[in-house]
Amino acid sequence: MTMQHDSIRAIEWADGVLRLLDQRRLPTETVYLSFADAGAVADAIHDLVVRGAPAIGITAAYAVVLSARQHPQDAVAMDRAIARLAAARPTAVNLVWALERMRRIVACTGADPAALLAEAQAIHREDIAANRRMGKLGADLIQAGDSVLTWCNTGSLATGGYGTALGVIRSAWSAGKLHEVFAGETRPWLQGARLTAWELLQDNIPARLISDSAGAYLMRSGKVQWVITGADRVTANGDVINKIGTYQMAVNCRHHEVKMMVVAPMSTLDYELDRGDAVTIETRPAHEILELDGRRIAPAGADAWNPVFDITPAGLVDFLVTEKGIVSNPDRAGLADLANSA
Amino acid sequence: MTMQHDSIRAIEWADGVLRLLDQRRLPTETVYLSFADAGAVADAIHDLVVRGAPAIGITAAYAVVLSARQHPQDAVAMDRAIARLAAARPTAVNLVWALERMRRIVACTGADPAALLAEAQAIHREDIAANRRMGKLGADLIQAGDSVLTWCNTGSLATGGYGTALGVIRSAWSAGKLHEVFAGETRPWLQGARLTAWELLQDNIPARLISDSAGAYLMRSGKVQWVITGADRVTANGDVINKIGTYQMAVNCRHHEVKMMVVAPMSTLDYELDRGDAVTIETRPAHEILELDGRRIAPAGADAWNPVFDITPAGLVDFLVTEKGIVSNPDRAGLADLANSA
Repeated sequence: MTMQHDSIRAIEWADGVLRLLDQRRLPTETVYLSFADAGAVADAIHDLVVRGAPAIGITAAYAVVLSARQHPQDAVAMDRAIARLAAARPTAVNLVWALERMRRIVACTGADPAALLAEAQAIHREDIAANRRMGKLGADLIQAGDSVLTWCNTGSLATGGYGTALGVIRSAWSAGKLHEVFAGETRPWLQGARLTAWELLQDNIPARLISDSAGAYLMRSGKVQWVITGADRVTANGDVINKIGTYQMAVNCRHHEVKMMVVAPMSTLDYELDRGDAVTIETRPAHEILELDGRRIAPAGADAWNPVFDITPAGLVDFLVTEKGIVSNPDRAGLADLANSA
Repeated sequence: MTMQHDSIRAIEWADGVLRLLDQRRLPTETVYLSFADAGAVADAIHDLVVRGAPAIGITAAYAVVLSARQHPQDAVAMDRAIARLAAARPTAVNLVWALERMRRIVACTGADPAALLAEAQAIHREDIAANRRMGKLGADLIQAGDSVLTWCNTGSLATGGYGTALGVIRSAWSAGKLHEVFAGETRPWLQGARLTAWELLQDNIPARLISDSAGAYLMRSGKVQWVITGADRVTANGDVINKIGTYQMAVNCRHHEVKMMVVAPMSTLDYELDRGDAVTIETRPAHEILELDGRRIAPAGADAWNPVFDITPAGLVDFLVTEKGIVSNPDRAGLADLANSA
């Protein structure tokens, strides 16, 4: 398949092998890991070789193809592989969504590898198309001369390609609308500093990193009119589960009358869950905060609390941008209308 | 002089030499640097060998003693030394305040080194006494079973000893009132992770670090009832200038009905400045965000915006605790009453 955003390919399939760009080693090293085993892909998702809600969904879909090739006609092995993939990360719904699509093909075709590969590639291709569409829709909301703050990484690395929030930023930048782009460094894993800065540099979009603590002062200084983020899950009432810090920024957006835009494909919307509080928020090991690149920051004996997502109530979100359309002031009724729209 | 909090001595004077604990190397190494030259002390303040508003005031006072010993009866050299010390960091008022006290002794005694040393030691001793008093006053506000989040480092390392916000936490912990203590890691310089965690471990106060982005989710989870911080300057209307992120937390405190306590000695109150917007907010080099311990985090070519303080409007502060007393809902009238109180 052709990636529409050519510079960065986080997920590649060729000749029966899945290749993942090892995001743990960016930006200093560009290393691809190759996978022929579905279980190893589940571990790679857990270990953050690949991350980003849409990207882990696409990766899991390809892993189902691997499982079908490893264990032809073995329904037990397939069930086990899908269960293991689904459990690799708890918070993003895209993982479960992509696996459900693959499970339907398993059921209909008896786990035919060619049919499964076609479905995985469709998921991948549709995600890129959704990102392009959201990029256009989101950019249309932005006034010429506006500046934005984004969070975590929501670009080609986090998706099939182009990106969700970063897709809107790319699109708005191409249209000449953006004055400045700021990115939170996004501790503890530094997705902003390591990945978003890297993607923006590759596209020649000038950006400035800030400490995660500087967002409110940035807003008070009048330097941004928008915070634009992705999402790992949006529940039926419009609550947004996303990278830790999103909620803190959303509270500050409302305080400073800065607009909050969440950009997420329909595959991220979870109509099964009533509200954000029902989502399992992943807490990762303390050492991710206590160390950086394996080097100790905090003293021996120190402890940390490391939730890596948070819940932003729908009431703090101004716009939810999906490939089906934009929901302003998202709420249960607005999301229901979106689901029922053509 | 005797330090009342015995375990940590950030600033020591002995036999005509000023010794500073090099806070850049904590917590992995405990190294003291010795100074006999006032200009070198100014550089040390600028380079963050010592930091924390009260601590840099005390350090500058001792540096004036060094200058008097280096250049006896040289008024020009003394003026130059004081000017250089005052310019070492722009935001904290304690530096200017301590130098003003020393300048008065210079004027009255013709820069007598013994008189200047007595004044520097008085500034140091009074700061510790103020911290002890504030610790008691602040702890009295806390209900048994409350939990707190603190920010940056405000302990023995940041003051003459014991600490401001950390003094309140020490005092409340000793009184058996605190359920849990959380500390923001405080990027970019990681004062929370490197210094506050280290001090709390030395006192056997269990604490958990959080990413700076996790404060709002911590509040929403009901895990803290207080945010307690120090200050680098409090203006006449009660606005608080403190470490970047304080304002972001204060906005979230109000949103979550978490109480915000600012603990600062009278030497931090700047009645000359009308409001927070009049204070120079120090912006430090981008590399402090782009690198960690000299190792690049962000890709080559990335840029950063690095303001290291922010301004919290008085209206977001619930309690200002000083050694003279507590101001609830601080404002111009409350601060004026405090100044006029016995």
